[in-house]
Amino acid sequence: MSQMLPLALTMGEPAGIGGDISIKTWANRKHNNVPIFFIIDDPERLRSLARRLGIDIPIKEIQSAEAADKTFSEALPVLSLGVNVKSQPGKPTGNTAKSVIKSIETAVKLVMGGSAGAVVTNPINKAVLISEGFEFPGHTEFLAHLAKCQQSPVMMLTSPELRVALVTIHVSISNAVKQLSAERIIHVAKVCNAALKNDFGIANPKIAVAGLNPHAGESGLMGNEEIEIILPAIKALQDDGIDAFGPYPPDTMFGKRERKKYDVALCMYHDQGLIPLKTIGFDQGVNVTLGLPFIRTSPDHGTAFDIAGSGSASEESLVAALKAAAQMQLTSNTKE
Amino acid sequence: MSQMLPLALTMGEPAGIGGDISIKTWANRKHNNVPIFFIIDDPERLRSLARRLGIDIPIKEIQSAEAADKTFSEALPVLSLGVNVKSQPGKPTGNTAKSVIKSIETAVKLVMGGSAGAVVTNPINKAVLISEGFEFPGHTEFLAHLAKCQQSPVMMLTSPELRVALVTIHVSISNAVKQLSAERIIHVAKVCNAALKNDFGIANPKIAVAGLNPHAGESGLMGNEEIEIILPAIKALQDDGIDAFGPYPPDTMFGKRERKKYDVALCMYHDQGLIPLKTIGFDQGVNVTLGLPFIRTSPDHGTAFDIAGSGSASEESLVAALKAAAQMQLTSNTKE
Repeated sequence: MSQMLPLALTMGEPAGIGGDISIKTWANRKHNNVPIFFIIDDPERLRSLARRLGIDIPIKEIQSAEAADKTFSEALPVLSLGVNVKSQPGKPTGNTAKSVIKSIETAVKLVMGGSAGAVVTNPINKAVLISEGFEFPGHTEFLAHLAKCQQSPVMMLTSPELRVALVTIHVSISNAVKQLSAERIIHVAKVCNAALKNDFGIANPKIAVAGLNPHAGESGLMGNEEIEIILPAIKALQDDGIDAFGPYPPDTMFGKRERKKYDVALCMYHDQGLIPLKTIGFDQGVNVTLGLPFIRTSPDHGTAFDIAGSGSASEESLVAALKAAAQMQLTSNTKE
Repeated sequence: MSQMLPLALTMGEPAGIGGDISIKTWANRKHNNVPIFFIIDDPERLRSLARRLGIDIPIKEIQSAEAADKTFSEALPVLSLGVNVKSQPGKPTGNTAKSVIKSIETAVKLVMGGSAGAVVTNPINKAVLISEGFEFPGHTEFLAHLAKCQQSPVMMLTSPELRVALVTIHVSISNAVKQLSAERIIHVAKVCNAALKNDFGIANPKIAVAGLNPHAGESGLMGNEEIEIILPAIKALQDDGIDAFGPYPPDTMFGKRERKKYDVALCMYHDQGLIPLKTIGFDQGVNVTLGLPFIRTSPDHGTAFDIAGSGSASEESLVAALKAAAQMQLTSNTKE
């Protein structure tokens, strides 16, 4: 069993709540039982933000990921980006785009080099990055690019009551229907199955597959995707020894009794998975990227510009993301 | 203020749980504080079913809706269909299709003639009726036909925590996207607005309009329907003095805090409304048809052939449907 490594937390959009919640997470680390992490940021920016928030915590620059272990009990460890990040809460600017990207790149380099245990990302603002030539639809795709992944990674969201994985993600409903294919469902199910075994310690993951249409199409009365795409995919998965079943009517599969019957719900489009998750309550929800060669989690909220710098943002989801990353690291280590 | 009239309950599919839950509803009428209703059915069928269930209740044939008032405290009042309905629980047959339809027609006749206060429907099985030449996609459309409605009625589902109304209903996701139009959104919103005022006693209904796409399209990055269809509809409604607002990202609008901020969520497709409703828990959920010239409610479950005749079906949703119908009648009467 290898040693637990510190978690690399990215800066995220500096005009968003990333700094606020990172500072609060360290400040409340004992109460929340937070695993050791360091943030890749500008130490001066964080000191000034902590003063603004009235949260008087020690912030210490470290020279390597390894140093986080010793530092963490006394101060928030910051691996410096090497530049001053000048940013006003709530007022994103293209001037900081390079630093946002560098923080992510550094985290990936450290985790792939074996000196960090996982990448945990603070929220970014795509619009700002796109204007600076960032060509990826989001974090997930950028991380896959940095890790030189051959296949698309999978977005899974996990909360104490429900886990969902998405077959199609950030596309319109029309395009989600167009993108749906048996291959894609099989890929996502296999990535989930492997991750639930290896990183979550579930010996035989139960994968409930949702239909696409109301009542799962009601035998073709309201759409044929269940018959033509989803059912063949489920059969192929079962032939491969994977415990996938369905397709289920999407509206009844997330009820209190039903959601206890599976380890993950495979959802055909973004809101099919996100609506039940956030309806139940998602303060402790975590976004996990599966299919990368390293562990990556993030809180599933945005930059929340409207409350950035005010101290009112809750660190609960970031705490949950850090704990999930540590838990996954522990589970994978145990398996080795 | 007019007198409260008894509620007309239809037989529904006799091989389904309609009889079971109707008998249990009357048996537990005091505990559940159930308003006066009568069922349009075959008294002999119900007597034999009650024996099978081991629920020894008096069942009395009445000759007119008016007689329900006097009978209800002593026996389950049944307005006879005038034919023997022969049916085995769990085994639907086309032989009973005419009786199923006649029960609905009779209920509509009575409510439109002023001797019943509302139509409450037990679940039917479309497949059985279709095979007998029933040409309607469901109850709602058949009722609209019987009532000679010019415009499509609106399906609203209401539970103690959330009310949703559907802009498109029983069609595939692809067709829901195709059917979406500003006219349809405006129609549904106006019908909801009027019903919430008149039948639910809400002076200024707050109508939250959902987006169609993830993140409500994120300014057109993931779909244009919000910009081209939904936003113009909202503006037209506001110009008309209706308190409609949105479009909201569908995944965040149903959370515990968010759903307190509106009286009804206008949902663009079936599962967008049904997923949050049933995820929260729908045992007390009621399906209400708006835009008919009379009050109509129903439990929002199906025929449940697998448990019909066993006594295990819960009457909770039927009780809620009857109470909602009585409540709506009371509210409309008060307004007169």
